[in-house]
Amino acid sequence: MPSEQTFFLILAIFISLLAFGFAAWLYSWVKRQPVTNDSIKEIGGLIRKGANTFLTKEYIVLSKFVGIVALLIFVFLPLPIWKNGFLENFTMAIAYIAGALFSAVAGKIGIQVATIANMKTAESARKGIRPAFMSGFRGGAVMGMAVVGASLLGVTLVFLFTGNTTALLGFSFGASSLALFAKAGGGIFTKTADISADLCGKVELGIPEDDPRNPAVIADNVGDNVGDVAGMGADLFDSNVASMSAALVIAVNLGNKINVSMVFCYATIGLLASIFGVAAARIGKNGNPTFALNSSTYVTTAIFGLLTAIATWAFNFEWRIWGASILGLIVGVIIGITTDYYTNDNKKPVRSVAKASESGPAFTILSGISYGLLSTLPAMVGVGFSALGAYKICQPLGADYAMFGISMAAVGMLSIVGMIISNDAYGPIVDNARGLAEMGDLGDEVLEITDSLDSAGNTVKAITKGFAVGAAGLTVIALLGAFMSEVNEVAAGLGLDKLTSFDIMNPIVFFGMLVGAATPAVFSAMLMLGVDRNAQRMVSEIRRQFREIIGLKDGKPGVTPDYDKCIEIATHGALHELIPAGLMAIIATILVGFIGGVQAIGGFLTGNIVSGLLLALFMSNSGGLWDNSKKYIESGANGGKGSETHKAAVVGDTVGDPFKDTAGPSINTQITVVSLVSSLMSTLFLTMSIFH
Amino acid sequence: MPSEQTFFLILAIFISLLAFGFAAWLYSWVKRQPVTNDSIKEIGGLIRKGANTFLTKEYIVLSKFVGIVALLIFVFLPLPIWKNGFLENFTMAIAYIAGALFSAVAGKIGIQVATIANMKTAESARKGIRPAFMSGFRGGAVMGMAVVGASLLGVTLVFLFTGNTTALLGFSFGASSLALFAKAGGGIFTKTADISADLCGKVELGIPEDDPRNPAVIADNVGDNVGDVAGMGADLFDSNVASMSAALVIAVNLGNKINVSMVFCYATIGLLASIFGVAAARIGKNGNPTFALNSSTYVTTAIFGLLTAIATWAFNFEWRIWGASILGLIVGVIIGITTDYYTNDNKKPVRSVAKASESGPAFTILSGISYGLLSTLPAMVGVGFSALGAYKICQPLGADYAMFGISMAAVGMLSIVGMIISNDAYGPIVDNARGLAEMGDLGDEVLEITDSLDSAGNTVKAITKGFAVGAAGLTVIALLGAFMSEVNEVAAGLGLDKLTSFDIMNPIVFFGMLVGAATPAVFSAMLMLGVDRNAQRMVSEIRRQFREIIGLKDGKPGVTPDYDKCIEIATHGALHELIPAGLMAIIATILVGFIGGVQAIGGFLTGNIVSGLLLALFMSNSGGLWDNSKKYIESGANGGKGSETHKAAVVGDTVGDPFKDTAGPSINTQITVVSLVSSLMSTLFLTMSIFH
Repeated sequence: MPSEQTFFLILAIFISLLAFGFAAWLYSWVKRQPVTNDSIKEIGGLIRKGANTFLTKEYIVLSKFVGIVALLIFVFLPLPIWKNGFLENFTMAIAYIAGALFSAVAGKIGIQVATIANMKTAESARKGIRPAFMSGFRGGAVMGMAVVGASLLGVTLVFLFTGNTTALLGFSFGASSLALFAKAGGGIFTKTADISADLCGKVELGIPEDDPRNPAVIADNVGDNVGDVAGMGADLFDSNVASMSAALVIAVNLGNKINVSMVFCYATIGLLASIFGVAAARIGKNGNPTFALNSSTYVTTAIFGLLTAIATWAFNFEWRIWGASILGLIVGVIIGITTDYYTNDNKKPVRSVAKASESGPAFTILSGISYGLLSTLPAMVGVGFSALGAYKICQPLGADYAMFGISMAAVGMLSIVGMIISNDAYGPIVDNARGLAEMGDLGDEVLEITDSLDSAGNTVKAITKGFAVGAAGLTVIALLGAFMSEVNEVAAGLGLDKLTSFDIMNPIVFFGMLVGAATPAVFSAMLMLGVDRNAQRMVSEIRRQFREIIGLKDGKPGVTPDYDKCIEIATHGALHELIPAGLMAIIATILVGFIGGVQAIGGFLTGNIVSGLLLALFMSNSGGLWDNSKKYIESGANGGKGSETHKAAVVGDTVGDPFKDTAGPSINTQITVVSLVSSLMSTLFLTMSIFH
Repeated sequence: MPSEQTFFLILAIFISLLAFGFAAWLYSWVKRQPVTNDSIKEIGGLIRKGANTFLTKEYIVLSKFVGIVALLIFVFLPLPIWKNGFLENFTMAIAYIAGALFSAVAGKIGIQVATIANMKTAESARKGIRPAFMSGFRGGAVMGMAVVGASLLGVTLVFLFTGNTTALLGFSFGASSLALFAKAGGGIFTKTADISADLCGKVELGIPEDDPRNPAVIADNVGDNVGDVAGMGADLFDSNVASMSAALVIAVNLGNKINVSMVFCYATIGLLASIFGVAAARIGKNGNPTFALNSSTYVTTAIFGLLTAIATWAFNFEWRIWGASILGLIVGVIIGITTDYYTNDNKKPVRSVAKASESGPAFTILSGISYGLLSTLPAMVGVGFSALGAYKICQPLGADYAMFGISMAAVGMLSIVGMIISNDAYGPIVDNARGLAEMGDLGDEVLEITDSLDSAGNTVKAITKGFAVGAAGLTVIALLGAFMSEVNEVAAGLGLDKLTSFDIMNPIVFFGMLVGAATPAVFSAMLMLGVDRNAQRMVSEIRRQFREIIGLKDGKPGVTPDYDKCIEIATHGALHELIPAGLMAIIATILVGFIGGVQAIGGFLTGNIVSGLLLALFMSNSGGLWDNSKKYIESGANGGKGSETHKAAVVGDTVGDPFKDTAGPSINTQITVVSLVSSLMSTLFLTMSIFH
């Protein structure tokens, strides 16, 4: 039924454009909200300028990188151009550039709206929690709609024009490589500023968070935008594209066009459900923002389940595959809830860490690391169980359908990603709004409102991070299936034996697995050392300013710190540090592939997934746990603010910052990138390795 | 050639007995050294009593555990007794008890000599570094000889009497389960005491290490013995038995008796080489103890290489397998050297962490964690490379020989274990001697000598720990081979298909892998939380004593703290906390096996090895790194003792203590235990699982 497939492709394009239209409406709504306070305008303007400066500089660096890689792709992939001819390689290079470009545009849109929405939210907070929430949420939703719209549109267009799944992997690789560096760069920027601001401001001088005397305070707020908005958007853009691409690669190789239709249909419904969910988000006059955020997530989930059931019935899709998708979605939600247990301040882990902090910072660290390690279990079991369940549900349809089931479980888990991104981008916007309210001296009542919005943002953020890791885990298992699919297509063309398994007992596989497992460890270490080095540079600068700018410490009117210098240090350091770690992961993949061939790569990807998931969960969750323990103590428990216990908790939070906002979430992207590099280079690895 | 095999079995028994004889001679030599100082006698006596009390209580708890497991084995393993008959199950249960018993006896011997040698070393230090070194080293060597002698003797006797490799796995499981709890229990004891003593003594009151006013000081010294001597001995006993057992299981299934001979021949030569190495250890009058320890390791390595070459030539063994063993040994040494890079205070990582500590404890932790993560790479690549190399070297002999090659690489790596244990047990003995010299007021000159002995112990310890992890990694890969070997033997008996692979693309395998990877994380978290809880109890007790015992703080003559109370808390806590973590690992294995069958177990073991190696290396190395950074600062760098930088480094050291001495090394044993449980239960998993 090619006409049916075309129908779904056109529908996907139509709904993507609808999402863009909705995003434009939300954007104009946010823009219409008034800002009257001058100091908010001024400080907000500084933040906006800083964020755009960083983004521009980052994109200049990345465009060079993308250009070089595109050239390499053109020459070598999927096969050297002297063997393969011009067209396929050219298509691949263009698809790669398009993937990077779409991701960059979505990130840029996110920053544009986030750096307005923060001011609007702060200003609206003077009128109550309701308008403030709406400004923050709708600002975040622009990002959500833009990211998911762009990813669905991009995938659909590439598929429509090329009909070629390898080009799709090229598009996905473009998105991933941008995400890798945007996440790493943004993560280093934001944590450099955050740690330095806290260390010099809160700890050394005892001035409050977001105090305008602190030279790093603008950089800190810029960091929220470039790290948590642009970086996170690129990350989930990447996961979403990768999950669709993996499903499509497998669907095409299954040879039955109805499966391709199904992928587009489900992804489109996911976007539609997110549009409904965003539109439905409301908060009562004195309402609870956490409840509002969570309930719109549940609305989206329910709409997705219902509409896909109707579509499955109407278009005669396989019910078993529907079951796999729903299983993926449900497990995603469960992983989010268990993550919440480890990071919620009403639960035991956060309180135990707060209690342990009474004995000093070493115990804050030890207990936080311990709970972080414990927290990996439910998500690991969840990912494994959903893969196993999806496989078993779909196996009766045929052996090849089982892997398709896993990829559709990933698509199901990511179906509500539009809603997830909206919630996630809401966080840094209201965090910024809190900063603006503090710096603009809007009074305690406003601060109380922005605090309550911010705290909801933190709770929801922890859940969505767990969700993102789960989705990435399932996606890369599907990508492993896609890799094998690709290898077999190539092998068939070369007259080689079909590859049917990666055997653990084959020491080439095992060798690859051990190297693959070490890669995320080295990758995250390099990022954290980058933050460490950069923060030390910024700390010296802040100390210098307090020492040299007369009257700054005492808050003499008219004396302002040199904010730009701190932004410059954060920018320079982030751009300097973002390339090596990402390059290391890519080079490790290429080395293992040329040494051990596709078998070693199978092991490499597996080791990378296993240790990457473990480290990402550990780091994200213990980081969130420390953050919330500190906040719990600040709320008055275990001695409260300023006590020795609080100081110990601040040490935990400082360690947790690069864990949860730099290294942990970047690992997700690292896993996807090496999976895609492997798929793209499968022909080379198959034919040119030392051992095989 | 059964006569040849018998020759090697008898030779192994003979050389084991020779090792015992040598140990007895060393023991009597140590005992002959004089102790005249009364306070050394008194304090040394307290340590000896405390260590023996703990060991007795621990063995009582463990004997109950061993009894219950032996009963379960008798009823259910290798097959339920109503299916299998009495004899095989009874043999298995007896072999299991024997494994636990041999390990316990070796541990007891180690404690007996270590708690004398510490006094002798302290006393000898008055006469110079040379006699002090000899007392410490020969005391440690008693343990080395006893452990390796007992392991070779045990394996040989079990093989001789049963001729049954399954019984061998039972023996190995006995050794492992004792090691698991001895390592965990000893590790919790020692770090509870160490952390509490440091926190209350050094940090809160500013009194020096090993000050007799500190109520936890005796417990701390007892801890060195029960954790680092008895626990570590049980750990390496376990690895050594496991590597021999894995090699023998594979050799027997290869069907050619010359391979069995080869395993015994190489293991025997390894023990012989260690005897020579120990006998050759000498130090110049003003010599360098690190050099003395390292050079005897190299002597042992060279003798092993030479003698095995001669034996291979004389008995017509396969040269390729000799090559695999030597490769394993060389890689083991290389792993040790790279570990040294990350923990040596002359190298960049330690100095960077010391420098980072200037910005506060959060940076100590962040940079230490980062270098710890980086340090996993060389060892992971090394283990993978030696497995791959051994496989490729031996593959031309036939497909089955390739896995035998890997197991012989593990035997090669562990061949010098007698020497390694001697060096390792030397550490806590001289550490204790330092404590005795301080408490007995032997003067600065003596303290200087014991300090230099202690620092050599720390350097060598870091290397041997890297070595132990590498050996465990290779051993468990061999055990995975042994597991498959076992499964196939059973499958053949039941008329089932032969198992030839564990396919990563099979989601049951993947499911097992994810759960297996989470297990070491949960296991280590449980141990660290145990230390944390227990240390908090002991800290309260120490504070109580300083508060309530009048004159204690000021060191009034005649006022002594209640040492016993602290020993009691450490003992009670360790015994309380040691069972749950170990039991969790065993139960996880059994659950996965009954859910997913042998395929899931293949994945489970793989995930367990990969994440276990990663976490063990990360924890051991970052722990060692923090310890040495603190010592480096204490030597006067970055502000020196008492500075804020030093305080930050102490936080790092406190976090590192349970990393390197409780959780990290226990993971080794956990990996071995789950491998052995899997092999022993393979028949049940093959026939009674839900999915398969």
